[in-house]
Amino acid sequence: MRPVIDLNCDLGESYGHWRLGDDDAMLSLVTSVNIACGFHAGDPTTLLATAAAAISRGVTIGAQVGYHDLRGFGRHFIDVDPADLAADVIYQIGALDGLARARGGRVEYVKPHGALYNAIVHHREQARAVVRAVREYDASLPVLGLPGSVFLAEAQEAELCTVAEAFADRAYNPDGSLVSRSLPGAVLTNPSVIAARMAQLATDRTLEAVDGSLLTVEADSICVHGDTPGAVDLARVVRSSLTANGVTVRSFRCAS
Amino acid sequence: MRPVIDLNCDLGESYGHWRLGDDDAMLSLVTSVNIACGFHAGDPTTLLATAAAAISRGVTIGAQVGYHDLRGFGRHFIDVDPADLAADVIYQIGALDGLARARGGRVEYVKPHGALYNAIVHHREQARAVVRAVREYDASLPVLGLPGSVFLAEAQEAELCTVAEAFADRAYNPDGSLVSRSLPGAVLTNPSVIAARMAQLATDRTLEAVDGSLLTVEADSICVHGDTPGAVDLARVVRSSLTANGVTVRSFRCAS
Amino acid sequence: MRPVIDLNCDLGESYGHWRLGDDDAMLSLVTSVNIACGFHAGDPTTLLATAAAAISRGVTIGAQVGYHDLRGFGRHFIDVDPADLAADVIYQIGALDGLARARGGRVEYVKPHGALYNAIVHHREQARAVVRAVREYDASLPVLGLPGSVFLAEAQEAELCTVAEAFADRAYNPDGSLVSRSLPGAVLTNPSVIAARMAQLATDRTLEAVDGSLLTVEADSICVHGDTPGAVDLARVVRSSLTANGVTVRSFRCAS
Amino acid sequence: MRPVIDLNCDLGESYGHWRLGDDDAMLSLVTSVNIACGFHAGDPTTLLATAAAAISRGVTIGAQVGYHDLRGFGRHFIDVDPADLAADVIYQIGALDGLARARGGRVEYVKPHGALYNAIVHHREQARAVVRAVREYDASLPVLGLPGSVFLAEAQEAELCTVAEAFADRAYNPDGSLVSRSLPGAVLTNPSVIAARMAQLATDRTLEAVDGSLLTVEADSICVHGDTPGAVDLARVVRSSLTANGVTVRSFRCAS
Repeated sequence: MRPVIDLNCDLGESYGHWRLGDDDAMLSLVTSVNIACGFHAGDPTTLLATAAAAISRGVTIGAQVGYHDLRGFGRHFIDVDPADLAADVIYQIGALDGLARARGGRVEYVKPHGALYNAIVHHREQARAVVRAVREYDASLPVLGLPGSVFLAEAQEAELCTVAEAFADRAYNPDGSLVSRSLPGAVLTNPSVIAARMAQLATDRTLEAVDGSLLTVEADSICVHGDTPGAVDLARVVRSSLTANGVTVRSFRCAS
Repeated sequence: MRPVIDLNCDLGESYGHWRLGDDDAMLSLVTSVNIACGFHAGDPTTLLATAAAAISRGVTIGAQVGYHDLRGFGRHFIDVDPADLAADVIYQIGALDGLARARGGRVEYVKPHGALYNAIVHHREQARAVVRAVREYDASLPVLGLPGSVFLAEAQEAELCTVAEAFADRAYNPDGSLVSRSLPGAVLTNPSVIAARMAQLATDRTLEAVDGSLLTVEADSICVHGDTPGAVDLARVVRSSLTANGVTVRSFRCAS
Repeated sequence: MRPVIDLNCDLGESYGHWRLGDDDAMLSLVTSVNIACGFHAGDPTTLLATAAAAISRGVTIGAQVGYHDLRGFGRHFIDVDPADLAADVIYQIGALDGLARARGGRVEYVKPHGALYNAIVHHREQARAVVRAVREYDASLPVLGLPGSVFLAEAQEAELCTVAEAFADRAYNPDGSLVSRSLPGAVLTNPSVIAARMAQLATDRTLEAVDGSLLTVEADSICVHGDTPGAVDLARVVRSSLTANGVTVRSFRCAS
Repeated sequence: MRPVIDLNCDLGESYGHWRLGDDDAMLSLVTSVNIACGFHAGDPTTLLATAAAAISRGVTIGAQVGYHDLRGFGRHFIDVDPADLAADVIYQIGALDGLARARGGRVEYVKPHGALYNAIVHHREQARAVVRAVREYDASLPVLGLPGSVFLAEAQEAELCTVAEAFADRAYNPDGSLVSRSLPGAVLTNPSVIAARMAQLATDRTLEAVDGSLLTVEADSICVHGDTPGAVDLARVVRSSLTANGVTVRSFRCAS
């Protein structure tokens, strides 16, 4: 049986007059797109057009929910009350789902964004709030997150389908956690190295950690960035490498 | 056959720390509530609680869509591009519908708010944008608006179910339009007078205009305000008067 | 020499259509007002009117700077970058100062609001950012804060004039810190008790701690709340009690 | 006597994570910069850095005040109450002035942005509100606007110093108004043509209108755009052409 993996990236992160990322190019390379929902980025016009483009290309749409923080692009932890966070998450999923449905598609998974993504690796109350929100909105929606995170653990407990992801351009510690961005070597930049690592991940379920040890990583999806210089080229070489190594690149599926 | 009419009011218009209106009291008096959607008022926590309260009382939920204008409470005309307005409306309906569905209900109609409501009495492009948005979201959703408005005309053309409303506390011109708020006598304040007028409207489909002439008004719903002093008392006397005059007060229904 | 103390409260915390607090009544009772600056509350129209009212009554105006968080009323910690926080604080002071100057007054001190106030009791980087912002805006502006806080320590180090405040309705631990709001008895509600405590504070520089021990509290200002039920009455009894005990109630002064 | 003219452009229009325009390049070419004030664009960090850069290069800082409309980049007319608009304008000038003063400079003029700029060409109430705001903030501040506009007329009446500007890349009607953007030929794109026109404007105070007639244009400043493709190159050729034709390019001055 051929190995299978999903490629996901963030999309729809423009806002009004401000443009961000080459959404069109990324849509031809990835299989799942985490579309912003208006709280950290994404005005409704952008979101509607982005959803339409994803639908027309057969790319799976995820709701990229975040903190209410346009100014900070959702990149600052906010100590919001869990009940408020849960309501915020439902609001965001519903809004994007409405736009997607208006174009004949729908939201098919949820991925938290930025500081919220990072917070709920450890912050149990906020993690539970996101899980509760997804369940209350639609208990059949998968959630995408970091392997080993409190978020995915809580989601499993709540019987949501969970999808673990690896990061194409990040170095890993021997325990499977990401090397902190504050340390040298945390972010990989050599496209050939990244492409080879991702092929190995998809075929062998392993990655080399920063100390040279071999790490088992169970990931159903690979996150590639869409808004950094060279992002499109990097996504292209990752995808080519996967295909060349016999990996089927397609969106993840949950048993129903 | 007993005459039937709907009573509607705005709800869920608090925002964060700021409270507005006695939502709980109004919910026991009206049969349809126009719940804010976050653009002119209504944070997600408020909206979720408001939707839950409406659902538990069996009151019909409408999406009260407005301009993106928290500062101005949606009360200033904004010359927004129709395509942007349509996306805004879908976003708002979807967000509120998501919150309502998370509590076991759903959005069952759409009523534009404030300056948008007033603009699309005449502004054809914006009226069409709202109609298009409702159709694209769910073509079976009724829209609530002013009799004779461009909005209801466009909605009928688009084969949406349209619901015309009368205003309990407003004086009418002989041609059926509302007396401008800038003129004396535009707003009625005597509860007995208002109660008698609304009973006559529901039973005879007529209202006395400012010049004393008798006006035919085909309205399926009566709008009572929820955030003015005495709003709850006024809604109570209107409802009592309707019931005492043999009128069945219940939410409107559209032929399917 | 008669003892002297300042009474301060928050003001100008309405936003657009939403009203909060009885600003007019509070202005006749306090000697310094912490006027919101638009980030957690306070639209420009409200702020301009509030500044004008304070100026006409001879009440000292402070800039109540906060996190960029209208939705949360500035009550949630935000892990904002210190450089961004410093720019935010300058922006807010400048905006309020501009409005005050347009009415013939000016901002005469700075008091952080809500979660920012609480954060910089301990959070050194954010405390320094606020101090740096005040210095860069106008190094002669005093800052109001919690005795013993990192914020006031950093401000002293930077040679700003610092004003320590006590809270009229809060219980104190034997070490001079506030009893956490999560504990019973943290908030005092008996007006007579509060009035007597504040008179003792102003005349003897002491307060009874929760364990009955006598605590020395060096405070130049007493903070009374303006937006809780009974706030106006409480401020009135505190002021009466101070006056009756020979305390001069007037705004603080810094040596120049 | 050598002819003199000012070159102005918009600056500081990034917002948070979203970047716009090549501010650095433009600062080396123009003599006055209209810096955003946070309502249509410009977070405080961006504004502080932009003000600092302008100050270090000796470029005059203007406050580019606009409608409260981040979503629409201030490009949609908002029927805001004049009293609210005046408060908004004071708030914005004060905020930017505070940031500029924190870096050793100050706001030296005011130029309305986008839809507000266009509205007050004709909208007397909003024009008066802006004029009143500038006067109340600092009656010595010049205002920049369209020759013949109601705004400049009201400003003159109020004894503000007024500065008329011409647009480098716009075609003119024989009556001196701008050719509507909806018509072909409204926007000029040939750098040589534009450069020659601006040199003629500065030296002869004339421009060729769309019908070939010669138009007298009294402008103290030329507006070049900063955020369109080729903007920097266009500003460079305009400046070179002015200099080559013996024009002194420097910021405008008002008699005091």
